[in-house]
Amino acid sequence: MKIEVEDKESNSHGNRLAVMLIDVQESLLAGIKNKNKLLDALNILIQSTNFFNLPLFVTEQVPNKLGPTAQSLVAELSNIQSIAKSSFSIFGCAEIREKLFNKKISHLILSGIETPICIYLSAIDALKAGLEVTILSDCIGARRTDDESIALSKLQHAGCHILPLESFLYGYMGSAEHPSFREISKLIRNR
Amino acid sequence: MKIEVEDKESNSHGNRLAVMLIDVQESLLAGIKNKNKLLDALNILIQSTNFFNLPLFVTEQVPNKLGPTAQSLVAELSNIQSIAKSSFSIFGCAEIREKLFNKKISHLILSGIETPICIYLSAIDALKAGLEVTILSDCIGARRTDDESIALSKLQHAGCHILPLESFLYGYMGSAEHPSFREISKLIRNR
Amino acid sequence: MKIEVEDKESNSHGNRLAVMLIDVQESLLAGIKNKNKLLDALNILIQSTNFFNLPLFVTEQVPNKLGPTAQSLVAELSNIQSIAKSSFSIFGCAEIREKLFNKKISHLILSGIETPICIYLSAIDALKAGLEVTILSDCIGARRTDDESIALSKLQHAGCHILPLESFLYGYMGSAEHPSFREISKLIRNR
Amino acid sequence: MKIEVEDKESNSHGNRLAVMLIDVQESLLAGIKNKNKLLDALNILIQSTNFFNLPLFVTEQVPNKLGPTAQSLVAELSNIQSIAKSSFSIFGCAEIREKLFNKKISHLILSGIETPICIYLSAIDALKAGLEVTILSDCIGARRTDDESIALSKLQHAGCHILPLESFLYGYMGSAEHPSFREISKLIRNR
Repeated sequence: MKIEVEDKESNSHGNRLAVMLIDVQESLLAGIKNKNKLLDALNILIQSTNFFNLPLFVTEQVPNKLGPTAQSLVAELSNIQSIAKSSFSIFGCAEIREKLFNKKISHLILSGIETPICIYLSAIDALKAGLEVTILSDCIGARRTDDESIALSKLQHAGCHILPLESFLYGYMGSAEHPSFREISKLIRNR
Repeated sequence: MKIEVEDKESNSHGNRLAVMLIDVQESLLAGIKNKNKLLDALNILIQSTNFFNLPLFVTEQVPNKLGPTAQSLVAELSNIQSIAKSSFSIFGCAEIREKLFNKKISHLILSGIETPICIYLSAIDALKAGLEVTILSDCIGARRTDDESIALSKLQHAGCHILPLESFLYGYMGSAEHPSFREISKLIRNR
Repeated sequence: MKIEVEDKESNSHGNRLAVMLIDVQESLLAGIKNKNKLLDALNILIQSTNFFNLPLFVTEQVPNKLGPTAQSLVAELSNIQSIAKSSFSIFGCAEIREKLFNKKISHLILSGIETPICIYLSAIDALKAGLEVTILSDCIGARRTDDESIALSKLQHAGCHILPLESFLYGYMGSAEHPSFREISKLIRNR
Repeated sequence: MKIEVEDKESNSHGNRLAVMLIDVQESLLAGIKNKNKLLDALNILIQSTNFFNLPLFVTEQVPNKLGPTAQSLVAELSNIQSIAKSSFSIFGCAEIREKLFNKKISHLILSGIETPICIYLSAIDALKAGLEVTILSDCIGARRTDDESIALSKLQHAGCHILPLESFLYGYMGSAEHPSFREISKLIRNR
């Protein structure tokens, strides 16, 4: 439930985290409510993922039609190869399934768009595949905010952990003595 | 949980869907909050049901007193015979029970009005009858919006899946390669 | 879950309902948010209870200090003897426990004030005593609305049915052919 | 579920309560939404804890950097030694764990800041340690109110009791005949 990771790769419970950034493409972002706040939060998430040295996967929905991941995030993602998919759930994509399997990921941290579509369908499939799922409430977005809250409520009932980014970051660090504490604090100070 | 149907009639889990449009009659619509948005969503639902070739049932509450289904929906429903009922739950009506039984329906997708009355009572009866129940949050309506959200919360705790229409449509299609993807996208574009 | 009563005294599942009207005294009403709406809903509840011939219990918190039940409700309650209590939960009062036991009540319908205090504590005690509990969301009130919604959410998680009055009334009647349907419809028409 | 304590130290179920006041330091309070309301509620909580003679623990996050507990609370806390911690969860601090263990505490009442960080992480750890956890909804605070409600919803699903202060106080007293009833009523009258 709580995000607990004692070492970078896997914790004492054999829990191996991966962060998923799903379909944050300009053309899909266009209609998203509060998209600037979302991009700010995603920037903090990506930088934190780097500090924590956690695996990060980036997906793009039919990128040859919908274009690449948003420019404002790309700088932080420079050495990451995004994965193209046409299924709405990330589990409809064999490449992603294999990567998660090969890295023995047991707990997915989901972010991106849209909550009631690709996030929802990916999360349900992840639960079915036996993974633990955390959805970062301020790192996801939707065109229709009512749909978003309905989908989140359903996901919580289905067994996902719905948590704000800060709960994840502080839970991961555990203490003000964590080596990344200063950097993370700085990122969060002006939210 | 997720709507998963591999072929039109029944999926690999033997899951057979039917869409129910409950009591969308002008006289009942009169007091419904946001009724134009509701009718727009119902129009998309009915057209999608046609694209997906899913069984659709239409009920009317005491139609000889309350009149027929709303005119703006009737065009899309031209070849469907609506079913008259006097019970508030659709399961109080023998004709509906028989039709669901004969078609071996195992999962109902509910839409229509009013959420705390006919939708609520039908959903609880459907659960008792062992059916899976999905309620489309933007395809239902009520005169009193507080009552609606209380009823939805209860229905979620009782075991119904409460989902927005788009989660259903995209979950049903699974991928941008689904043959109806273009048509569905077009329907949704200007919401 | 659904309110199902086939005959007036007890249904086929041996379910015996009683309606509780808790502490609706002028001095406590003074600070209640939306108290006029609450009184209107309580009036409909009391009249419906009469139509349905259901047992109704009325409690008053330390009435020699806080005064009697609100004047606007008393007309409908003319032949009912209210029960004085000093405990916040109705189950702290031996007289109420005995009456519920003697009438073999198995399902309480709760209304009155205040949601986070006497309603909350009574509902939890009722669950502990093995009773089914329905709380009518528009027939309860509180001085602090945030406290009310927190308490209701807790009560739902604890196992109470939280439902609007109309879900109860229509669920009880079952069909437009119920003998009280006209009267109930009339009561509700102008809400 | 309900707060039930028959005698001051432990009730018939062997339930031993302690109230935790977490990190209410000026520097952390600065960004908290509705901080004056929070401080008012905390003042009532602390005074009630004194009336009820319940154990109260006060923690401070890295106090040599972030300073002591807020001045406006200190008067009521005069004879309590606060406990310094650097972990975000109170269970990361050996001194607190030992005190809870030595006092055989089985049920924690949590208050303080911030809900999605130290409150959230402490509550999850308390559940893991087998303690019952009540979080007082109006005695906690956060910089970001959306994060707070997401964290509270998660905590409720995880098994914490989320209750307003008044539900706790009245549930603890049980009846208007409790010796502290007058004092508690006075504290609450003007909220």
